[in-house]
Amino acid sequence: MTPVEATLEILESNRDASLQRLFDLLRIQSVSTDPAFKDECNKCADWLVADLTSIGFEASVRQTPGHPMVVAHLDSSRADAPHVLFYGHYDVQPVDPLELWEANPFEPRVASVDGEDAIIARGASDDKGQLMTFVEACRAYVANGGLPCHVTILFEGEEECGSSSLPGFLAANREELKADFALVCDTNMWDSNTPAITAMLRGLVFEEVTIKAASRDLHSGLFGGPAANPIRILTVVLGRLHDENGRVTLPGFYDGVDELPDDIAAQWRALPFDGSAYLGSVDLSVPAGETGRSVLEQMWARPTCEINGIVGGYTGEGAKTVLPAEASAKVSFRVVGKQDPKKIASSFRQFIEANLPNDCTAAFISHGASPAIQLPFESTALNQARQALGEEWGKETVIVGSGGSIPIIGELKSNLDIDSLMIGFALEGDKIHSPNEKYNVSSFFGGQRSWVRVLAALAS
Amino acid sequence: MTPVEATLEILESNRDASLQRLFDLLRIQSVSTDPAFKDECNKCADWLVADLTSIGFEASVRQTPGHPMVVAHLDSSRADAPHVLFYGHYDVQPVDPLELWEANPFEPRVASVDGEDAIIARGASDDKGQLMTFVEACRAYVANGGLPCHVTILFEGEEECGSSSLPGFLAANREELKADFALVCDTNMWDSNTPAITAMLRGLVFEEVTIKAASRDLHSGLFGGPAANPIRILTVVLGRLHDENGRVTLPGFYDGVDELPDDIAAQWRALPFDGSAYLGSVDLSVPAGETGRSVLEQMWARPTCEINGIVGGYTGEGAKTVLPAEASAKVSFRVVGKQDPKKIASSFRQFIEANLPNDCTAAFISHGASPAIQLPFESTALNQARQALGEEWGKETVIVGSGGSIPIIGELKSNLDIDSLMIGFALEGDKIHSPNEKYNVSSFFGGQRSWVRVLAALAS
Repeated sequence: MTPVEATLEILESNRDASLQRLFDLLRIQSVSTDPAFKDECNKCADWLVADLTSIGFEASVRQTPGHPMVVAHLDSSRADAPHVLFYGHYDVQPVDPLELWEANPFEPRVASVDGEDAIIARGASDDKGQLMTFVEACRAYVANGGLPCHVTILFEGEEECGSSSLPGFLAANREELKADFALVCDTNMWDSNTPAITAMLRGLVFEEVTIKAASRDLHSGLFGGPAANPIRILTVVLGRLHDENGRVTLPGFYDGVDELPDDIAAQWRALPFDGSAYLGSVDLSVPAGETGRSVLEQMWARPTCEINGIVGGYTGEGAKTVLPAEASAKVSFRVVGKQDPKKIASSFRQFIEANLPNDCTAAFISHGASPAIQLPFESTALNQARQALGEEWGKETVIVGSGGSIPIIGELKSNLDIDSLMIGFALEGDKIHSPNEKYNVSSFFGGQRSWVRVLAALAS
Repeated sequence: MTPVEATLEILESNRDASLQRLFDLLRIQSVSTDPAFKDECNKCADWLVADLTSIGFEASVRQTPGHPMVVAHLDSSRADAPHVLFYGHYDVQPVDPLELWEANPFEPRVASVDGEDAIIARGASDDKGQLMTFVEACRAYVANGGLPCHVTILFEGEEECGSSSLPGFLAANREELKADFALVCDTNMWDSNTPAITAMLRGLVFEEVTIKAASRDLHSGLFGGPAANPIRILTVVLGRLHDENGRVTLPGFYDGVDELPDDIAAQWRALPFDGSAYLGSVDLSVPAGETGRSVLEQMWARPTCEINGIVGGYTGEGAKTVLPAEASAKVSFRVVGKQDPKKIASSFRQFIEANLPNDCTAAFISHGASPAIQLPFESTALNQARQALGEEWGKETVIVGSGGSIPIIGELKSNLDIDSLMIGFALEGDKIHSPNEKYNVSSFFGGQRSWVRVLAALAS
């Protein structure tokens, strides 16, 4: 029997006990955003430290300006083993509206949901169930003689309320937290039978522009015609940001945007994903992005420019014949690959300035500029994990992207300079942040087994 | 001595008395918008009836759902004389902020303002001083034997609060009020030495459009790319409403827009009007309308399309990565000449519909569609009045336009089917609606003399 097989066997014999441990953790009401639950957050951190210590980790609660962090270390006996940093968060979303829960959100239970057994409680999926899959895998490894990798664990208590202590904590503990790469368990499987690794997250550049013309609002009868209208100018300029094929017209915008590798492109094409059904869920039907790109590509692998807000002039009921003094818009760019956020912000501002008529000025505010996260497709760790997950689930692991950002990934990159493997076992239907949040029993046990295989693969 | 000369002489000998009569009228606090002044409005109507009766008019107060109208008739002894309807309004604006008045706004006085004697009181210019110029001219004619035209007078008491009783009153008294044309005394001279007739008012088509895409607001990370963004579509479509020369691109938009007659165009070019200074007053410098048109042309004689309001998505502080379900804009068109407001509204709606991508719908609300007022430049009455005013002031009468509408003109046209000659003696600096409203003494006496000449010319 290989060490992996032996460890998986230990997991199997401890299913009930691992479920009871997760239930204990779920009973702690660690709602981070509400100060009334501060003691519960502390209690939750203490519980985790105790549990990790019981496994053999050197674990401690670390105070922050907000809720505490939990940090734990346990080395492999093999000195040259890779070092992984596992990230999860123990805080949960508030439970309101409470009346929509079928039972007490902090009294976990197993029930059948859509024909599958699921653990139902606040935090079952996001993120207590997910983080415990890794803890249980470590516990089984230790019971079988030791970990295949050096492991550092970081559990955050403020993920659901803005992670305000996280960047400072990472920066202040850079040496202690340094690892070869991070494992982040806060994402989904492709479906309940198909594992997935999230390898690409789009970055975000967010700009606000205000176009100003006259020194005061004007009457459109007296001044309409000769006076510049900043709303009109805003629509003209913003209306030029895309060409007829949906491509962004800013000079240099596509610098650093690579085509997908053939195998990933082929995998995405073969996925049982119905773009029309996805859009149909919000009463749309036609992909509105770049011509010739699938919905998945448009969401995961292609950059965008969107206007997220616009306002100017009179916006109440009825009519007012005003020519406003100014108009403004919030414009964001989802960036991919090696696109340079600062260059894009700068290109946007230059584009606006270059398209302004006389008498108009533009003022800008930056609301952030973060790059895309792109795990190299040829990364050894990625391919080891991909292989291991495939073996556990008996299906090819899907390499997916995410259209939005996951802040921790960028923080780990910028503060610790390490890449993250985003592997999670949650499902689209888990109702995270909503009433009756659930985590499939198959996610919980399959997740534990997956980590046993992934840790072994990473150490091979 | 001609009848005109004799009548002018009578006016001259009655200057003091006419000023005292105006002062009596100005002392009545006929603020129409504030119910506390209802009795004062009635008192003002009674005063006018008494004064007109004393001249010889058959005058009466006519009740309406709001403040009363004053209607008066006096025929010329010449049966075939033309019949004119004179319109003015006896109600005035509120006086607040009272602390900015240099004296009691209802205690009229004559004082020097910028080197010119002026009557200072609420309503001195708008519109009691103006309407009394006509009454005094009639009084002098009667003293000299009779009126050269049949005259009907209509004084309204709700012009400053929405004229809500006016359309119904005109419609209900169509036969009694019918005339060959109307004289409306509520406009300005070109400057204190140069008379003006307003011969063109732009009309207004006001549309609101809402573009809808997804059935709910979306996250721009999850849906940005494949999902249609109604703000983006709105900017693209609205951005296409003008070409690079500032012309409106709606098909058929310029149907019914004529070039100015050569003599009017030449007069406008020769006017001492500094377009840059006009724009400079609101910190603009470059005419933003159609290329190759002067500021005056752009304001008075050319149609426009303006966006008066736009809103969509997140418009608060900071950033929100939303793709909104809808976005909307208020779009108005100033129309001139024979442009058809209904065709323009319809053309706008078709243009939007034709430019919508799949998955998007547009909903429209009309906030009105009124045609331009354009007195035919070849009109006999216009040219008679133009000549008469020129003789009185010793300067060529300027034929001017107005970029905005004057509701009474449209009401007279639609209810009584008569054109209006807009002749007034107010000045740009009269501070109407503001503290220390004034009416130059030269406007008051020159206005009386002007009407003597105009009535004679119209009857010639």
